[in-house]
Amino acid sequence: MGKPVDMVEVWRGDLLESVHQGHAVVCDDLGQIVQCWGDPDKLIFPRSSCKMVQALPLVESGIALSDEQLALACASHSGAAIHIDRVGAWLRDLGLTDDDFRCGPQMPRDPAIKTALIKSDQTPCQIHNNCSGKHAGFLHLTQHIGAGPDYELIDHPIQQLCKSAFEETVQETSPLYGIDGCSAPNHACTLHGLARSMAFFASAHDRSDARSTAASRLVQAMAAHPALVAGEGRACTELMRAMQGKVTIKTGAEGVFTAIIPEKRLGVAVKAADGSTRAAECVIAAILVKLGVLDALHPAAIARMNPPIANRRGTVTGHIRPAAALR
Amino acid sequence: MGKPVDMVEVWRGDLLESVHQGHAVVCDDLGQIVQCWGDPDKLIFPRSSCKMVQALPLVESGIALSDEQLALACASHSGAAIHIDRVGAWLRDLGLTDDDFRCGPQMPRDPAIKTALIKSDQTPCQIHNNCSGKHAGFLHLTQHIGAGPDYELIDHPIQQLCKSAFEETVQETSPLYGIDGCSAPNHACTLHGLARSMAFFASAHDRSDARSTAASRLVQAMAAHPALVAGEGRACTELMRAMQGKVTIKTGAEGVFTAIIPEKRLGVAVKAADGSTRAAECVIAAILVKLGVLDALHPAAIARMNPPIANRRGTVTGHIRPAAALR
Repeated sequence: MGKPVDMVEVWRGDLLESVHQGHAVVCDDLGQIVQCWGDPDKLIFPRSSCKMVQALPLVESGIALSDEQLALACASHSGAAIHIDRVGAWLRDLGLTDDDFRCGPQMPRDPAIKTALIKSDQTPCQIHNNCSGKHAGFLHLTQHIGAGPDYELIDHPIQQLCKSAFEETVQETSPLYGIDGCSAPNHACTLHGLARSMAFFASAHDRSDARSTAASRLVQAMAAHPALVAGEGRACTELMRAMQGKVTIKTGAEGVFTAIIPEKRLGVAVKAADGSTRAAECVIAAILVKLGVLDALHPAAIARMNPPIANRRGTVTGHIRPAAALR
Repeated sequence: MGKPVDMVEVWRGDLLESVHQGHAVVCDDLGQIVQCWGDPDKLIFPRSSCKMVQALPLVESGIALSDEQLALACASHSGAAIHIDRVGAWLRDLGLTDDDFRCGPQMPRDPAIKTALIKSDQTPCQIHNNCSGKHAGFLHLTQHIGAGPDYELIDHPIQQLCKSAFEETVQETSPLYGIDGCSAPNHACTLHGLARSMAFFASAHDRSDARSTAASRLVQAMAAHPALVAGEGRACTELMRAMQGKVTIKTGAEGVFTAIIPEKRLGVAVKAADGSTRAAECVIAAILVKLGVLDALHPAAIARMNPPIANRRGTVTGHIRPAAALR
């Protein structure tokens, strides 16, 4: 199938210094490709961009959860106080401790918490891991169904539920899985499959089955709490705010990005071929602008789609912009 | 000319998750291409990979400088104590202060200094900028010739000397320049031109003209002080140590890497098309192995060429390796 196409240009002065290639698919709720760049059949790991899919079994379980908890279950958060306070409370409500997590410790991105840890000679805990909300959800569901503590293993009932939800919404049998940065399994699918899954979420509000009802609730929870899904200054948070709750988006490692557009019943999936985050952020913003749901002149859009590159003295030395295929 | 070729593969489990493309040239001291991947005529900014070229006017000036000072003038250092102590002493010997720098402040990469700054609520100074050694050299030469303080401007005598040295060693007229992260001009050249310049350095020990004598001294100074050129844990430092002073290498921003191999009179220039550092490090290590000057089994080589990818719990989830063209 198709090779990756030029998607993002990095300019310094008048020279095109670097170029990012990639693939992207816009899909409707019938699973049909509406627009495509590169190879729609490209096999990828969605990484954290499919956390809303991994949260479906949690919602379907019937456990009473707040929208904030659901947004955190879908988050790759910065480890700010708004995140760790809420995940911490969730953990305590379950009668569990940090040691029950299986995500591993990670220095948080949030400057205030990171500085506080360094100043007090503390090492980060598992709750600081950007995936700790997802893992709190895994722990809650594990407790609910009375399963064993190793909830991150592929044969654990929780991960089998996640795999089933994944394969149903991407409408593919996943050929293989990898282990994610947080130790949870991550199932491979085509980029088309990932976009199809996002279109399932985008149209879920029109259906009344249990899975669609759960999907719709997750879409709304993420859109209602953009700061919980990522954090201040982050692409997911700022772009969702710019779209005023009308679109739900999610980043993933190695240059993946997804979008759910309920008003158009469209799903979007992006993969930067080289795994670059600056590329994936530029591409998702450019596609959202092309689809008419993001204002190209909004500061949050400019910051991803056309960000200036400044040097250590603050002088602008270059800029990033979408390549011709996305302009 | 040629398109970029696949150079580096990023695997997670059994799936090729991301791919980096790029260009590379190996050039002999007659300026002839010995081996090439992608487009040798690709126009690039060498960024920090050509700091030894920018240091030529300093050495040619006849100013008495130690090998440590020359290594620092060519460095993209981590801002560790070994760097800032020496650059600080150099600055004081000139009767200058941090305010005389034009490189801008940068939080140092070195963990100990970075932690110390955070713990004492200090912001970084210009001396912490990874280019402060180069700028100390600029300041010294500026003082030596009695030029004005704005040594970073393109029309300043220092930058005109640098441009002349650059164009002579790459054997091209540079069509344009950009402003680097440290505010100094950075002149564009072809990848072949950059490799030709490195081959000039690699064969300089056989010639007795002033420029070649200066080039040879810089090659030896960098090779003799690998820790000053970058820092502990860094590719330049670890790979130069692994090659026991026989090869001089230098990284640059946006995926550039150069190598100078005196025993073979060869120069190498690498550009990752997407600007990725993990790609450029893998490629330069793979080429040095192919050229027989780096042991593929040395831990420093493995750490760049075939590094494992681990998750937050330390479990290996994937690996990086050179693509077929470099194996």
